[in-house]
Amino acid sequence: MMAEDRELRVRALLDRVRAEGRTALTAPEGKVIADAYGIAVPGEELARDVEEAVAAAARFGGPVVMKIVSPDILHKTDAGGVVVGVEGAAEVRSAFCRIVGNARAYDADARIEGVLVQELLTQGQEVLVGAVTDPTFGKVVAFGLGGVLVEVLKDVTFRLAPVDADEALSMLDSVRAAEVLRGVRGRPGVDRWALAEQIRRVSHLVTDFPEIAEVDLNPVIATEHGAVAADIRIVLAERQPAPRRRYSREEILASMRRLMQPSSVAVIGASNEPGKIGHSVMRNLVDGGFSGDIHPVNPKAHDILGRKAYRSVTEIPGDVDVAVFAIPARLVAGALEEVGRKKIPNAVLIPSGFAETGEHELQAQIVAIAERYGIRLLGPNIYGYYSTWQDLCATFCTPYDVKGPVALTSQSGGIGMAILGFARTTKTGVSAIVGLGNKSDLDEDDLLTWFGEDPHTQCIAMHLEDLKDGRAFVAAARETVPKKPVVVLKAGRTAAGARAAGSHTGALAGDDAVYDDILRQAGVIRAPGLNDMLEYARALPVLPTPKGDNVVIITGAGGSGVLLSDAVSDHGLRLMEIPPDLDEAFSRFIPPFGAAGNPVDITGGEPPSTYEATIRLGLEDPRIHALVLGYWHTIVTPPMVFAELTARVVAQMRERGVEKPVVASLAGDVEVEQACAYLFERGIVAYPYTTEKPVAVLGAKYRWARAAGLLS
Amino acid sequence: MMAEDRELRVRALLDRVRAEGRTALTAPEGKVIADAYGIAVPGEELARDVEEAVAAAARFGGPVVMKIVSPDILHKTDAGGVVVGVEGAAEVRSAFCRIVGNARAYDADARIEGVLVQELLTQGQEVLVGAVTDPTFGKVVAFGLGGVLVEVLKDVTFRLAPVDADEALSMLDSVRAAEVLRGVRGRPGVDRWALAEQIRRVSHLVTDFPEIAEVDLNPVIATEHGAVAADIRIVLAERQPAPRRRYSREEILASMRRLMQPSSVAVIGASNEPGKIGHSVMRNLVDGGFSGDIHPVNPKAHDILGRKAYRSVTEIPGDVDVAVFAIPARLVAGALEEVGRKKIPNAVLIPSGFAETGEHELQAQIVAIAERYGIRLLGPNIYGYYSTWQDLCATFCTPYDVKGPVALTSQSGGIGMAILGFARTTKTGVSAIVGLGNKSDLDEDDLLTWFGEDPHTQCIAMHLEDLKDGRAFVAAARETVPKKPVVVLKAGRTAAGARAAGSHTGALAGDDAVYDDILRQAGVIRAPGLNDMLEYARALPVLPTPKGDNVVIITGAGGSGVLLSDAVSDHGLRLMEIPPDLDEAFSRFIPPFGAAGNPVDITGGEPPSTYEATIRLGLEDPRIHALVLGYWHTIVTPPMVFAELTARVVAQMRERGVEKPVVASLAGDVEVEQACAYLFERGIVAYPYTTEKPVAVLGAKYRWARAAGLLS
Repeated sequence: MMAEDRELRVRALLDRVRAEGRTALTAPEGKVIADAYGIAVPGEELARDVEEAVAAAARFGGPVVMKIVSPDILHKTDAGGVVVGVEGAAEVRSAFCRIVGNARAYDADARIEGVLVQELLTQGQEVLVGAVTDPTFGKVVAFGLGGVLVEVLKDVTFRLAPVDADEALSMLDSVRAAEVLRGVRGRPGVDRWALAEQIRRVSHLVTDFPEIAEVDLNPVIATEHGAVAADIRIVLAERQPAPRRRYSREEILASMRRLMQPSSVAVIGASNEPGKIGHSVMRNLVDGGFSGDIHPVNPKAHDILGRKAYRSVTEIPGDVDVAVFAIPARLVAGALEEVGRKKIPNAVLIPSGFAETGEHELQAQIVAIAERYGIRLLGPNIYGYYSTWQDLCATFCTPYDVKGPVALTSQSGGIGMAILGFARTTKTGVSAIVGLGNKSDLDEDDLLTWFGEDPHTQCIAMHLEDLKDGRAFVAAARETVPKKPVVVLKAGRTAAGARAAGSHTGALAGDDAVYDDILRQAGVIRAPGLNDMLEYARALPVLPTPKGDNVVIITGAGGSGVLLSDAVSDHGLRLMEIPPDLDEAFSRFIPPFGAAGNPVDITGGEPPSTYEATIRLGLEDPRIHALVLGYWHTIVTPPMVFAELTARVVAQMRERGVEKPVVASLAGDVEVEQACAYLFERGIVAYPYTTEKPVAVLGAKYRWARAAGLLS
Repeated sequence: MMAEDRELRVRALLDRVRAEGRTALTAPEGKVIADAYGIAVPGEELARDVEEAVAAAARFGGPVVMKIVSPDILHKTDAGGVVVGVEGAAEVRSAFCRIVGNARAYDADARIEGVLVQELLTQGQEVLVGAVTDPTFGKVVAFGLGGVLVEVLKDVTFRLAPVDADEALSMLDSVRAAEVLRGVRGRPGVDRWALAEQIRRVSHLVTDFPEIAEVDLNPVIATEHGAVAADIRIVLAERQPAPRRRYSREEILASMRRLMQPSSVAVIGASNEPGKIGHSVMRNLVDGGFSGDIHPVNPKAHDILGRKAYRSVTEIPGDVDVAVFAIPARLVAGALEEVGRKKIPNAVLIPSGFAETGEHELQAQIVAIAERYGIRLLGPNIYGYYSTWQDLCATFCTPYDVKGPVALTSQSGGIGMAILGFARTTKTGVSAIVGLGNKSDLDEDDLLTWFGEDPHTQCIAMHLEDLKDGRAFVAAARETVPKKPVVVLKAGRTAAGARAAGSHTGALAGDDAVYDDILRQAGVIRAPGLNDMLEYARALPVLPTPKGDNVVIITGAGGSGVLLSDAVSDHGLRLMEIPPDLDEAFSRFIPPFGAAGNPVDITGGEPPSTYEATIRLGLEDPRIHALVLGYWHTIVTPPMVFAELTARVVAQMRERGVEKPVVASLAGDVEVEQACAYLFERGIVAYPYTTEKPVAVLGAKYRWARAAGLLS
């Protein structure tokens, strides 16, 4: 069938269903669509009475399945409307009557169109193929192992629709029970291509027809010879979401450049009065050392902090790149009109009192003004933002000036403050900290697009509670990840508010399941918690990128070695199998009762030279790609001695062009804290009193390297 | 059947199998045992030729299953030796020939005894019931949902055998897919009692016959009417483990009391020479302020650190409670003989050079000496131990003197040093730190028994890599947990070294799966990592025990509220559903756009009085059982103001007899670190830059309270 043909046919059918005021399609309607899209289904006929059923069953030959057909009965099994394995005229007759009787008992008002007589499928692995409309990501295709059991275990994976054949195939390996599809305990594997083809076709169906809200092929019976959908359910959407305005990459970069690298900043509501937000913002801009122009705007003041004040932004001479708002919510709209007339491209809206307090109309009003003038909005309801390489602290919080490679964003002000405190206490070098607040306009995809290009930024970490446009975020992430790691802390993971859903697939698509799969495919490193996000952000730019999978643990404490091995396994890393010659080389440096192998256990009583020789060997041997060090505080090798020798060996090897990630866990008395700080500053990610954190960071680096295509 | 009868019958059968030099029982032998123990199996007959098979099938009536019977073929399905659903003489004939043919092709040398003809079971839920012999815990019974799929997902739970009916029943709820057994999507639930009974009976079988290494009922077909084992496989052990010497509770307490509260300590190998272990131990004992007698033993010195030195412990006047060894491994045996003659009950063996370096014989030698004299050994290969309330630092490490409620033990010296550093930097009050090293004698169960009674100890945290006797540990934990929490960090969780196992159950019983289930049933709180163990140990004694499940989050930062909610859900806690009157009461204190409900979001700009009023209400209302606070650093309510007011309200309420656990996450600039320390010292568990840690600790407290029976 030609693509246009099939679309016309489906279009006609859907229009008819809509005209009848229905959203759920009947099984025969589902079959029409399945046929149009080449989705394999068993032979079937609709029997309007007992004799038609007997005749249909006779035509199919073997045993059949019989199912009630009613637009009013969605869950046919629950209604006693399905009988499986009916054979022979007598059985078919009795099944027909029973099904119709059950359906009437279940819902006396149900319109019953007849009973569907279907070929009984051969036994095989039940799987689920479906599609749902996710509020964040739009059309999403789902695959899972079927049957009641897996429905309970929710072993399902998701992709953005449409998918191509390869992506569909990858879904078969993304479920926990993937092994089953390859065949276990003597059972044959399933026809993977046939199954992938079912997924691919469903994904195209929902892409072609956005009004299809949900598709459920449940179960699909997969065998070594094919994959056939035993049942197809299709539900139409009640209404379509309004399309969101999108900006081109060039537009985003142009306005973001002026936001993050401004020459001239206006502060609307600047004040001389300490304690006022407009005062804090002015003071931070001035004290932060911003070298561009700072223009206070305040109709009642002559000058503020020694700078000439203007009654309105319209009176400021020359171009202005950013207007920071430090005025009450109700005054924002008026001032924003002036910002528009002045052609200022960016408005940073610190004030709260918009959507977050229920003032949705006020927010809609300023968005409309901004769209009219082409102003991009940051906020409202934010602490502002820092662009440290510009010495720009456009915020009412405490200033921060440690320049470095990490850009951090947060949707919440509280989390922004945690970012600030953490950065300060750990001396994390930062390129930017940006509050996103209500995200009335600028959001994570705009920032990703900018930070992806920003040469000062080597790692991006984002706290977010939702995404306004999941597809735009995925597109920006896919663009950025090959260049630098993107860490995401998605809050609201466990939100109990699972949407009421009309289909199996819908029920399985808890918000977080979809987020998790799709963020992973976008190459994003998901941080399990706030502290993890902060530590990843701090440590990822410090570590060189590994060039292969071989991780070696070198430890003075056998006990740390065991815990580090646990952590290596937990974080999806691989302990290298040490080849005999390398094993022998390590053995030469360690006591006879120490253990080469991996972990390399140099034992606790060893002098600095043993640490040094084994670490050097670990860095020199090209078959080793990453080192995890376990240090044990002893009198023979005190913490700072270990730190100094480790930093020295790593630096020497870097001079020789050997760059490998090295992380360390230091077990010892409080001096190890100083040793960790010393090591961190020198590019070795080191933590005291934990065997998990250093390995978690290394794991995050590996995840990024894989997502960026830097590791096979 | 009488219990003796059945035991005699099984005994006779097992003896016969052994006499034939076999370890695997045939299916008919399995059926004999199943019958003896009332384990329900389908009717079956062994057919030696085609005609016997036809006759047997005819007797059963319906369709049958046919299976090869051969002592040489364990995996019948793999060998093509199973055909299901055979009906009628012709089919039976053809199946018989096919099965025998396949078996010959699979293993030409296999002895084939015939084909088993079994009643075909009705369709139902496949489950697995089994038993294995765990190297740590001995006989362990297993239950899981069956089928290839769940085998892949390893959804199995374990208990120490034997189990009673209630414990067996609890296993049905301990698998992830438990819902399936209760009936989902219109399917009926299974007969839970019948299933529990199968588990109970298997557990008694392996308890009665320790030589049975593994039992596998796989699958058991469970329906709403019963549970029948479709297949039973029994494997005998090659050999039995040697029984371990056990001490009575009284004996343990008597020697442990003298170890932890000694009046007199001898140091064998005491030295005046700085840098020597014998010097460090002496110095720590003296400087630590131990008020009992300290007797240096050194044949070459007259006095050491001002104390008279003895040539041998035998020359010391009066009773000695503890002999600390600080001499090389090869000299230990001789000195231990003298310790025995002096009737010193405890030897603390610091030296390494025993089993950990491969010197197993040397270690066996000292164990034999100790057993001969009734000396209990701590170590060897340890840093020693601290008993802070006695001012006793019997160790070569740095001294530690912050007295408090936490007892910590570690199997590894490195982890011991991490404990020390962590305790010092966090000012954690400690009752004891004990190194266990090679555990040649004293181990975790002895220490648990002691710390359970020790009035100074309110929380016990143990790092361990293995348990010498899992059952003794479980017994000690069950005794201790109702009185105080026991935290365990089990290293080697993910050890790839899964044992080769001859059965399904065995393959599923990866060491850690068994550890995890059985430690949980013993009421132990398992820490996922080193840092978690340390934080739990520090925080659990600080928190009061919750009296109910209702957790309320009060937060200034909405963003923290979302992340704290995630954490609450992750840690198995329950956000209280706030009743309308309480909701209204909270609402009175917070701005109109703030959100009551749970989290109670007081919004970010609020003054101290809002925090104070809502926290007070949270403590006062008896329906609330625990508070999680989210603080957001603002100018209006700076960190120390929040800390002071929170500590004050909590203290006031405690004076009025209201004791509830309160934990806090502080988001803000570096001043929050000081605020957290202030709060921690006052009984509020507070952390900066993390929303996970405070809730993880609260979760651990709840887990303990449940295990201790303090919460329903």
